[in-house]
Amino acid sequence: MTKTTAGNFFEDFRLGQLITHATPRTIRAGDVVLYNGLFGPRFAVQSSDVFARKIGYPRAPVDDLLVFHIVFGKTVPDISLNAVANLGYAGCRFLAAVYPGDTLNAASEVIGLKENSSRKTGIVFVRSTGYRQDGAKVLEYVRWVMVRKRDETAPSPPDHVPRLPEALTPAVLGDACPPINVASYDFALAGSPHRFGDYAVGEKIDHVDGVTVEEAEHQIATRLYQNTARIHFNQFAAARDRFGRRLIYGGHVISLARALSFNGLANAFHIAAINGGRHVAPLFAGATVFAWSEVLAKAELPGRTDVGALRLRLVAAKDHACADFPLKAGAADDPAVLLDLDYWALLPR
Amino acid sequence: MTKTTAGNFFEDFRLGQLITHATPRTIRAGDVVLYNGLFGPRFAVQSSDVFARKIGYPRAPVDDLLVFHIVFGKTVPDISLNAVANLGYAGCRFLAAVYPGDTLNAASEVIGLKENSSRKTGIVFVRSTGYRQDGAKVLEYVRWVMVRKRDETAPSPPDHVPRLPEALTPAVLGDACPPINVASYDFALAGSPHRFGDYAVGEKIDHVDGVTVEEAEHQIATRLYQNTARIHFNQFAAARDRFGRRLIYGGHVISLARALSFNGLANAFHIAAINGGRHVAPLFAGATVFAWSEVLAKAELPGRTDVGALRLRLVAAKDHACADFPLKAGAADDPAVLLDLDYWALLPR
Amino acid sequence: MTKTTAGNFFEDFRLGQLITHATPRTIRAGDVVLYNGLFGPRFAVQSSDVFARKIGYPRAPVDDLLVFHIVFGKTVPDISLNAVANLGYAGCRFLAAVYPGDTLNAASEVIGLKENSSRKTGIVFVRSTGYRQDGAKVLEYVRWVMVRKRDETAPSPPDHVPRLPEALTPAVLGDACPPINVASYDFALAGSPHRFGDYAVGEKIDHVDGVTVEEAEHQIATRLYQNTARIHFNQFAAARDRFGRRLIYGGHVISLARALSFNGLANAFHIAAINGGRHVAPLFAGATVFAWSEVLAKAELPGRTDVGALRLRLVAAKDHACADFPLKAGAADDPAVLLDLDYWALLPR
Repeated sequence: MTKTTAGNFFEDFRLGQLITHATPRTIRAGDVVLYNGLFGPRFAVQSSDVFARKIGYPRAPVDDLLVFHIVFGKTVPDISLNAVANLGYAGCRFLAAVYPGDTLNAASEVIGLKENSSRKTGIVFVRSTGYRQDGAKVLEYVRWVMVRKRDETAPSPPDHVPRLPEALTPAVLGDACPPINVASYDFALAGSPHRFGDYAVGEKIDHVDGVTVEEAEHQIATRLYQNTARIHFNQFAAARDRFGRRLIYGGHVISLARALSFNGLANAFHIAAINGGRHVAPLFAGATVFAWSEVLAKAELPGRTDVGALRLRLVAAKDHACADFPLKAGAADDPAVLLDLDYWALLPR
Repeated sequence: MTKTTAGNFFEDFRLGQLITHATPRTIRAGDVVLYNGLFGPRFAVQSSDVFARKIGYPRAPVDDLLVFHIVFGKTVPDISLNAVANLGYAGCRFLAAVYPGDTLNAASEVIGLKENSSRKTGIVFVRSTGYRQDGAKVLEYVRWVMVRKRDETAPSPPDHVPRLPEALTPAVLGDACPPINVASYDFALAGSPHRFGDYAVGEKIDHVDGVTVEEAEHQIATRLYQNTARIHFNQFAAARDRFGRRLIYGGHVISLARALSFNGLANAFHIAAINGGRHVAPLFAGATVFAWSEVLAKAELPGRTDVGALRLRLVAAKDHACADFPLKAGAADDPAVLLDLDYWALLPR
Repeated sequence: MTKTTAGNFFEDFRLGQLITHATPRTIRAGDVVLYNGLFGPRFAVQSSDVFARKIGYPRAPVDDLLVFHIVFGKTVPDISLNAVANLGYAGCRFLAAVYPGDTLNAASEVIGLKENSSRKTGIVFVRSTGYRQDGAKVLEYVRWVMVRKRDETAPSPPDHVPRLPEALTPAVLGDACPPINVASYDFALAGSPHRFGDYAVGEKIDHVDGVTVEEAEHQIATRLYQNTARIHFNQFAAARDRFGRRLIYGGHVISLARALSFNGLANAFHIAAINGGRHVAPLFAGATVFAWSEVLAKAELPGRTDVGALRLRLVAAKDHACADFPLKAGAADDPAVLLDLDYWALLPR
């Protein structure tokens, strides 16, 4: 038995299999700092203990995407070390606010398997869950990923494609958000007067700014999450691979686009859920990332008058300012598009 | 009304206008750590809680320049998003020591306006103030910046150029420095035997070392301050602009030069005030920054026998070792010079 | 007397000389975070307060190598600013666990001096010690370094080459490791089922993964340690020097290789001692670092049934995957090899 892990291949997964992931990780205030340095988010709730306390949090919560990346990172050595492509996300819910000092673990269940017709790869569907030190769930999501087979002739399990929710319902969006004291929410300090009620379905927002990505930046970020996917770190191997370059972790694009979206969505302070998302093109260092958003829907949360939810489409593009709202979708197909993400954000009402 | 901010243009400012800046920001010990990684300062007071406590601080204070950059960063979205150039600073005073856990806000008052003869731009003078969570002022400075007009034909306010102090007086230099127990100040641990009394007016010090700047470094630093000036981050746009490259935040040069100045000024532990400063040439990644200092004046602080103040000229140059003390000033004009800063530092007596 | 330090030259050292190093440094949780971002270690004990507490630590200890680098960094301005090459380490012992909040100082004793026959350089042997704020020793090691003479004609002290231990004995390996409650050590969370007993002398482990190093990364890391060696930071000077490039701090290679070694040695949670090590080739940015290990010996610790010690050879190579276990040693000489380190690690029994 070898001591090193080469990761699981498609034929290693079994439907219903439960996987406990290494390594438990205590989140520090310093994680938030480094995340700030790498992405530059400016949402007041996550930036200021004082602001957070005034509106009802015990202190500034950790950025939702940092929680997502840390949980995701733990799943990589078991799920996607031999991945060809990360195909999509669905049903991602933030279930409890996370604070510096909390320690996170992660586990996954294999909920679907489908071999590709080439027999060289198959699609693995997992539901991954992040847990806090006290056992409380902080995050849950489904992702599906195309994984290599070790041996093309290996027999495969019967196809099983799970039913995935198209979008999460408003009733489940408030779990990680304490009751907000909107009267104490200082819109000037937060950077925008626009509340839940000021956004209209169909409204599109160009987030204007662009940010260029450096190799050191995405490597530092991705290592911070203890994400070990080789394609992000190893230029020696990448030079011999299809792109010739290190591929940037898809989650890096999400965090860049989210930080850019402050300009237009400054009060969308909490990502309550990610309905789905696709990385529609790869990103490499040296490119400049832009983003735009569209309001897909609006929803009140049952029993809550403090916050409302905007269902947002967040699109990121490379080397392409987003005033024309580029899309990768049928006739409107634009090769600059990197990311097409569908999520629910909470704003004060 | 658009939801995004394109920043203020010259004709948007009014004399006497008060601007509250977003985003409040809790400073963490991790901010200090990342600042250390980016600049490498070695001043003992800011590096060691034990050293700081021995001489009279409750714990290690946050580096003065980190406080400056965080306050400055907050002003950018409102003041200088459409700036052509940051022209100068004056009257910058550090008013209270800042510690990890403190939360900073910022506000500015427009104290001067002067349209340029081209009518394409104008100069905006602002007094910006950083506040602690309890309302105490921690920093105050004036800067003036050349800002684009949105519409060249827009009428302009009458010219008003404020009177600015040439230099701050010694009486105001002690506010952010508690009484220092010099008997407990360990000069060996601090890295140099040289006290206030050992420096002479006119003395020049070459700080010897040079440090090369990488794109990832200045981007991480500038995002850490939540400074959103586009010119620092967007290579796609910069490639079409006058320099063709991302311009490095001027404050980055100040921090590099200050860290280099440890070699020669190891006991100049506190920047009490910045009398003035000019960024005389732009810096781009790949260049190596050197620095030298000149003692312009010496002053005792009224009523204090613990510390004295050196008025220092700090000059930074690129790709040019500073043994010849280069200057950008009239006949001595040297194109390598980046920065010419005039500040007061406190040293033990 | 000049105010700046040009560092000591060979003829400045005296046998028996004691040197107190600047700058004391409080280690923060944020230091651990930034170290994680730069190297990506995944050892559970250092990553999770909860995991650490369950097995007997009061909280997650600081990574042993981060402690080493911080102590080492302090010695550079006095010992190796004029070094031509860092020749080797020996007798490095970790003497107490270090936690965020601890403040470290360092001091060195000159234990050997030997002029080289060229009379241009000499070898300086120092025993350096890291101290905690309460005076307890946390780290001790010997290194020898080739240092330039200021003046080739300067007289030299008589040769004195100290006797150095070839390897540390098992009796001294437990000082920085509290009694471990192995029943509470969760091997699934730690990422591997392999304990002390599962490794065999002579076993070789290819750590599989590779990681490409960027200039910004090694500069940030090396500044984090307040290591001021010019060769790591100054491209302007390096361009005129023998390599034409900034040389990466040798300790950076050790940390990269240690982090890679998680894949195969996930439960080797503590570096108890470094018997010796050589940087056999320089590393420059852009190269990809791989690593492999060999079990040189196994030892029980007197009086302890909780942990056992593996004596490991850790070899790092550049742009060369390590499935063939490359070495730089006589007939097996491989120019890709960067590092050949001999250390003791503790694992649960």
